[in-house]
Amino acid sequence: MVRMAEVSADQRLVKGARSRAAIARHAADVASVDGLAGVSLGRLATDLGISKSGIATLFKTKEALQLAAIRAGREVFVEQIITPALAVPRGLPRLRTLVERWLGYITDPVFPGGCFRAAVLAEFDSRPGPVRDAVAVDHEDWMQFLAAEIRKAQETGDLPGRSVEALAFEIDAIVSAANTARQLGDDARVVTARRILDDLLN
Amino acid sequence: MVRMAEVSADQRLVKGARSRAAIARHAADVASVDGLAGVSLGRLATDLGISKSGIATLFKTKEALQLAAIRAGREVFVEQIITPALAVPRGLPRLRTLVERWLGYITDPVFPGGCFRAAVLAEFDSRPGPVRDAVAVDHEDWMQFLAAEIRKAQETGDLPGRSVEALAFEIDAIVSAANTARQLGDDARVVTARRILDDLLN
Repeated sequence: MVRMAEVSADQRLVKGARSRAAIARHAADVASVDGLAGVSLGRLATDLGISKSGIATLFKTKEALQLAAIRAGREVFVEQIITPALAVPRGLPRLRTLVERWLGYITDPVFPGGCFRAAVLAEFDSRPGPVRDAVAVDHEDWMQFLAAEIRKAQETGDLPGRSVEALAFEIDAIVSAANTARQLGDDARVVTARRILDDLLN
Repeated sequence: MVRMAEVSADQRLVKGARSRAAIARHAADVASVDGLAGVSLGRLATDLGISKSGIATLFKTKEALQLAAIRAGREVFVEQIITPALAVPRGLPRLRTLVERWLGYITDPVFPGGCFRAAVLAEFDSRPGPVRDAVAVDHEDWMQFLAAEIRKAQETGDLPGRSVEALAFEIDAIVSAANTARQLGDDARVVTARRILDDLLN
């Protein structure tokens, strides 16, 4: 009986973790279109056909759900962009792969509203609190990663004489603006962005 | 009596127009921080200490209020950035003034949440409807204005051999990213943005 109860508790934990992950992932989808403001316990319950109290058991508050959405968005970004780039040699080839995959993630979006990071960063940059803090940390991690890869490219002789900070800032700015253009259906500007990025990484 | 009634009707119209403008302007302030999603009849009524039915008489729906906020944001942008630049000779001097004033509008913001356009563009780029249409038209007008000024600078011999579309896209992307950095309290990246813009306009 004790063993049975343990198995059952384990199963409940596994099931709970899976539910949490599925709910957080859907919350990220919602946030990419309607912003994190659109991520409410009630909305998620309706979308997923589960009870609001069921979601409340797992996430308690809207803010906890928003923070889980940010973590889910980050996991997708790592899986789609960073992990594949890590398979490519460090330096300029990896940097180009990062930018290429990031653009792909925007033109053929995983999230219905395009780049999750771009959406929530602009939404929460002016609203102090735990959500902005989480979004800012995520953004900073990405900027540091990008800067480290640029530095590595310079150590192997590429991109000579360029400011690492300026180049990382420009890449991020251009891809974010390309995301906006893509979401507005302006594919010509996405082509423009790609050309600018090619020039920056030459 | 007829004349009195006319005067009174006029006064009511003037008062109504003033109220509309004041409410729309506050709606733009709110949207710059909390997004257009935060612009509701109830929120505005509470903030301004007027009745919700009074606001509803002037604006009917949340969407009408959001559209009025976009027009108010546009008016401020024209007044702060475009009008002063029109006093400077066309070509590179005017282009530099436009970018300088736009950066000033970001570092010393008129709106509590920074650049109104950047905030609402990212918020509504994935949500089809009249609000996205208004935001997209406003953005496109600005991009065309910027492109026309770049073209003029080239006609007078400056910025030779540069793609007009690419340069307009870059300026917009860098200033928008500077706005995000500023809202996150990251003044070092605002300095980086300024350096990149100086290089672009040289």
